[in-house]
Amino acid sequence: MSTKTDIRSVSSHVGETVRIGCWVNNKRSSGKIQFLQLRDGTGYIQGVVVKSEVSEEIWNDAKSLTQESSLYVTGVIREEPRSKSGYEMTVTGIEVLHITEDYPITPKEHGVDFLMDHRHLWLRSTKQRAVMVVRAQIVRAVREFFDTRGFTLMDPPILTPSSAEGTTELFHIKYFDEDAYLTQSGQLYMEAAAMALGKVYSFGPTFRAEKSKTRRHLIEFWMIEPEMAFVELEESLEIQEQFVSYVVQSVLDNCRAELETLERDVSKLEQITGSFPRITYDEAIEFLNNNGFDVPWGEDFGAPHETAIANHYDKPVFITHYPAEIKAFYMKPDPNRPEVVLCADMIAPEGYGEIIGGSQRIDDPKLMEERFEQHNLTSDAYKWYMDLRKYGSVPHSGFGLGLERTVAWICGLDHVRETIPFPRMLYRLYP
Amino acid sequence: MSTKTDIRSVSSHVGETVRIGCWVNNKRSSGKIQFLQLRDGTGYIQGVVVKSEVSEEIWNDAKSLTQESSLYVTGVIREEPRSKSGYEMTVTGIEVLHITEDYPITPKEHGVDFLMDHRHLWLRSTKQRAVMVVRAQIVRAVREFFDTRGFTLMDPPILTPSSAEGTTELFHIKYFDEDAYLTQSGQLYMEAAAMALGKVYSFGPTFRAEKSKTRRHLIEFWMIEPEMAFVELEESLEIQEQFVSYVVQSVLDNCRAELETLERDVSKLEQITGSFPRITYDEAIEFLNNNGFDVPWGEDFGAPHETAIANHYDKPVFITHYPAEIKAFYMKPDPNRPEVVLCADMIAPEGYGEIIGGSQRIDDPKLMEERFEQHNLTSDAYKWYMDLRKYGSVPHSGFGLGLERTVAWICGLDHVRETIPFPRMLYRLYP
Ligand SMILES: [Mg+2]
Ligand SMILES: [Mg+2]
Repeated sequence: MSTKTDIRSVSSHVGETVRIGCWVNNKRSSGKIQFLQLRDGTGYIQGVVVKSEVSEEIWNDAKSLTQESSLYVTGVIREEPRSKSGYEMTVTGIEVLHITEDYPITPKEHGVDFLMDHRHLWLRSTKQRAVMVVRAQIVRAVREFFDTRGFTLMDPPILTPSSAEGTTELFHIKYFDEDAYLTQSGQLYMEAAAMALGKVYSFGPTFRAEKSKTRRHLIEFWMIEPEMAFVELEESLEIQEQFVSYVVQSVLDNCRAELETLERDVSKLEQITGSFPRITYDEAIEFLNNNGFDVPWGEDFGAPHETAIANHYDKPVFITHYPAEIKAFYMKPDPNRPEVVLCADMIAPEGYGEIIGGSQRIDDPKLMEERFEQHNLTSDAYKWYMDLRKYGSVPHSGFGLGLERTVAWICGLDHVRETIPFPRMLYRLYP
Repeated sequence: MSTKTDIRSVSSHVGETVRIGCWVNNKRSSGKIQFLQLRDGTGYIQGVVVKSEVSEEIWNDAKSLTQESSLYVTGVIREEPRSKSGYEMTVTGIEVLHITEDYPITPKEHGVDFLMDHRHLWLRSTKQRAVMVVRAQIVRAVREFFDTRGFTLMDPPILTPSSAEGTTELFHIKYFDEDAYLTQSGQLYMEAAAMALGKVYSFGPTFRAEKSKTRRHLIEFWMIEPEMAFVELEESLEIQEQFVSYVVQSVLDNCRAELETLERDVSKLEQITGSFPRITYDEAIEFLNNNGFDVPWGEDFGAPHETAIANHYDKPVFITHYPAEIKAFYMKPDPNRPEVVLCADMIAPEGYGEIIGGSQRIDDPKLMEERFEQHNLTSDAYKWYMDLRKYGSVPHSGFGLGLERTVAWICGLDHVRETIPFPRMLYRLYP
């Protein structure tokens, strides 16, 4: 009798006969031995079929297997130092489930559009699987970090009556007789949640109807948005650097094989610990203008500016104290210099751009009312948000981390389209 | 110097002076002592202000505090067996942050509509906070269960080109020049993911544009959808009962105080372990017709039927082998009796209804093609789904658990509207 198991667990079955449901990733053969490269989603193992040791039926079944054919394979697990995984299977039985013909993705090169059209199959490839495993580990590490530090998960709504940051980049929905929009950020709701539960975080999909095609943008992407009552900017920055370090180290601890598959230079990731460098917006302007750029004070930074600054450091860098004019209405002005706000963007190294944006929020009810009038937010849809300053206002801070950019950075990918199972981009809604 | 801390951590600061950011939940006073009921989102503590031991300024500051006023309180933590939390603070300093006037939610009774209109403030109440803490613990337990059993998290898309189950209950979105819909279920995508990663699960928001108002329905709700390659119905049922037991026991282990706040009868939850009872659809029909109902074979069950069946058991009950006609097109017919399918619904006890629906999926390419034609799914939007049967089809099963119904059941709530921070219902899009 053989035990049903999966490939990730074969190390506990050395010397035993096991049965594994799997697919053929690849195959080679001499006249007397067939080597089946098998995958089951949890790992990879080579199955060795020796002609002189199996029945003719098994030998022929093995011969019939094509790329992506599915089967139950039975055999004995052996330690095999020459194999990458350290184990191999001597095949003693094959139950063919389905012979695949003309699998569209072959070992030859395919164009990106072709692969994206076949994303549902492309996910089976070794590299795409590795990205998905790293993504899942990042999600797990994010939640571990907050769950073990007194934060409570709160899910803000996806369907919102309106948004605080203009409606041009919002997806509109008819919600029965009302107008609704897909959320771009749960932050305002998370502020309400922080007043109720102290330290909270959200982790869900957000949407931006942006007609731009860059390697850093998706239409549908996931964000982590912590919000913390009684936390001011400096403490928030400390939490952010601990958080990002924790996530990166957790991937290094748990996904070595996947990072190797992705040919990621892990020495770059090993440096992501301790405190991160900080420069003010003013210092960033000075640095840029001393290094071939010409950016007047008051202008926002674009990708080339961020990359130039980030290239100066081995770790993510905080850029703090941006001009109030170019930042969101809810950011708290610096009491010593009200033209800048108590905010910070965290720029990833190696050209991956902004991964976190955050700030201390305005807690003064009067100032918040002024901002509401300046930004024409006086509609009833925001009435509840003003209540947060009217009833027990407290100093508080929060930030948002974009999951897909973080996955791209940690995996060392050129484009965010490979960081999510089914990317949604301009002109890309299928599959 | 006082250490900044939060209320959940006071047990490690007995005898020390600490500083806590908090709100006034309630207050009572004699002429010589004021008792401040303080909350900071992480817990509750009583702050005792003794007139003869503090300055006049502190005494008056304490007097000025109203319900939901915010402050930094400084004081010495003492063990206090008479207090519910076991600790009390002797207040030595008060820094008033904000005096709240006319807080709308008072200890008197309010109507549900009023509370829902003030959901952003209602979340601060002891009972609503308890529900949110239990919800967060359930989410954590769900992820722990799958993360530690070889499942990989995969996030299916929210924006989909079409849906497999008819478009009448779908929210439509103009996706640039295309038509898109909000997902009702990630299942089809999760099947693609399972063929790539073996065992996968998703956990995200789903949407149903249903014009019904019941205590079991939300427009926007969260679903957990595991999908497992090489797993047949029986093994899937075993995973489901282990999963639900794990989640319930994890709440019992971690949220005793919150369950007490909710006055939940925990003896009912303590029984949720081991294997769950199973009856077939046929047996359920017979039971119902012997107990005052009149349900012909072939009809689906409604809430009253589910409740009548569930009341017969102390644990969740599986109803298996429904007629193919009333179930989804992708469910695998029973090879011995093709008019029923290899499926199961899990019905929660105490009248909370169906919390899981699941099945083994059709893996035969020919049969799947027939179903596609019967259900008019031949559009290009489903081409990719047929590929899953065309290339390496394998036996596989999956299920979906509704988070909010599970929260309602575990918390013992009458209505799902209290199970999510900002519920979306018919005529309810605010706040
Ligand atoms: Mg920026
Ligand atoms: Mg049902």
